[in-house]
Amino acid sequence: MERKEILSHVDHTQLAQTAGWESVRSLCEEAVAYGTASVCIPPSYVKQAKEYVKDRMAVCTVIGFPNGYSVTPVKVFETEQAIKDGADEIDMVINLGWVKDGRFDLVEQEISRIKRACNGKILKVIIETCLLTTEEKIRMCQAVTNAGADYIKTSTGFSAAGATFEDVELFAKHVGKAVKIKAAGGISSLEDAEKFLELGAQRLGSSRVIRLVKEESKE
Amino acid sequence: MERKEILSHVDHTQLAQTAGWESVRSLCEEAVAYGTASVCIPPSYVKQAKEYVKDRMAVCTVIGFPNGYSVTPVKVFETEQAIKDGADEIDMVINLGWVKDGRFDLVEQEISRIKRACNGKILKVIIETCLLTTEEKIRMCQAVTNAGADYIKTSTGFSAAGATFEDVELFAKHVGKAVKIKAAGGISSLEDAEKFLELGAQRLGSSRVIRLVKEESKE
Repeated sequence: MERKEILSHVDHTQLAQTAGWESVRSLCEEAVAYGTASVCIPPSYVKQAKEYVKDRMAVCTVIGFPNGYSVTPVKVFETEQAIKDGADEIDMVINLGWVKDGRFDLVEQEISRIKRACNGKILKVIIETCLLTTEEKIRMCQAVTNAGADYIKTSTGFSAAGATFEDVELFAKHVGKAVKIKAAGGISSLEDAEKFLELGAQRLGSSRVIRLVKEESKE
Repeated sequence: MERKEILSHVDHTQLAQTAGWESVRSLCEEAVAYGTASVCIPPSYVKQAKEYVKDRMAVCTVIGFPNGYSVTPVKVFETEQAIKDGADEIDMVINLGWVKDGRFDLVEQEISRIKRACNGKILKVIIETCLLTTEEKIRMCQAVTNAGADYIKTSTGFSAAGATFEDVELFAKHVGKAVKIKAAGGISSLEDAEKFLELGAQRLGSSRVIRLVKEESKE
């Protein structure tokens, strides 16, 4: 697969707690130079980053991240604020306690409310696959589809494990036609990136793909 | 030190992403039975927990947790919502990117605004010591003091490391008289719990202290 093609599917990501503006700024420059799909950054840098990149790059940010257990009105407010600050894409984390309580109705309602708050912008729903059973993952494919979100996303990158090929295959089998797939967390080679795309992922959340492409071109 | 005395300083904590209501409910029962200072739980269970424990136990929850990089208006809204849901104590995480940017003014303003939103309830400020330099920790002791928060707290329990004796000693030396200290994350024995209290901590954030007391009494 062409490197340019892989890069066009990457959400170039910097979500470290200690990332400062200089790190976010250079992330934006790299994303523009290499033609990624977006930069994925902390909410507190969205306004500054959008003013910096303007229309050269989509800005993605995270909601209820990474633990997912803020209340729905807070997640909705956080989404509205991010959109107001200039975010083009929103990656939210579901409430995993509710999943364990079997309250898929609440999880689905929350996703619907956040999708409305997105006001037409792209919503990706992180289900943190490493903390779910296969049955819970399938139930979440249905909930994400019913709620009208744009993407289902594997992982935050802050829990026990990241994306697996098996999870992307499972998603591809169980989500509705309108729902795309984002694989995120721990993508460690261009071969893996390519395989995720071949299995049906349309986005890759990664802090490493650009570096891997740079290293390859030096070889 | 009397076990009862140690327990009276504990915020009995369950902040796992997958904690469901049954786990929160049993945490509340243990806290009441063993006489801890509070239960510390995810925001999404505050309302239900407060209705369950009523005046038998203080309910503590977390804001901007654990990464600290939601924007100030979101943290303020989240605090107001938690207080409305019945929270008695608020443990917030500072914006660590701003610390790295040297914007201690923004960090201090944010703490002040959240303290006002607490409406008289207790505010603890988590500075995530494992990600800061000694100078940054000292600057944060000053910012937390200036902003009028009630406690400075070492750690979220979700980053690279938890509380250390050295950090509690550093806090004791640099915070103002009105600011108390909470040691949290990785407290693994009753001896350590006692030592943190002797060094000047008034609260201990822990999921383990009750279990350690139970195990000791079986011996």
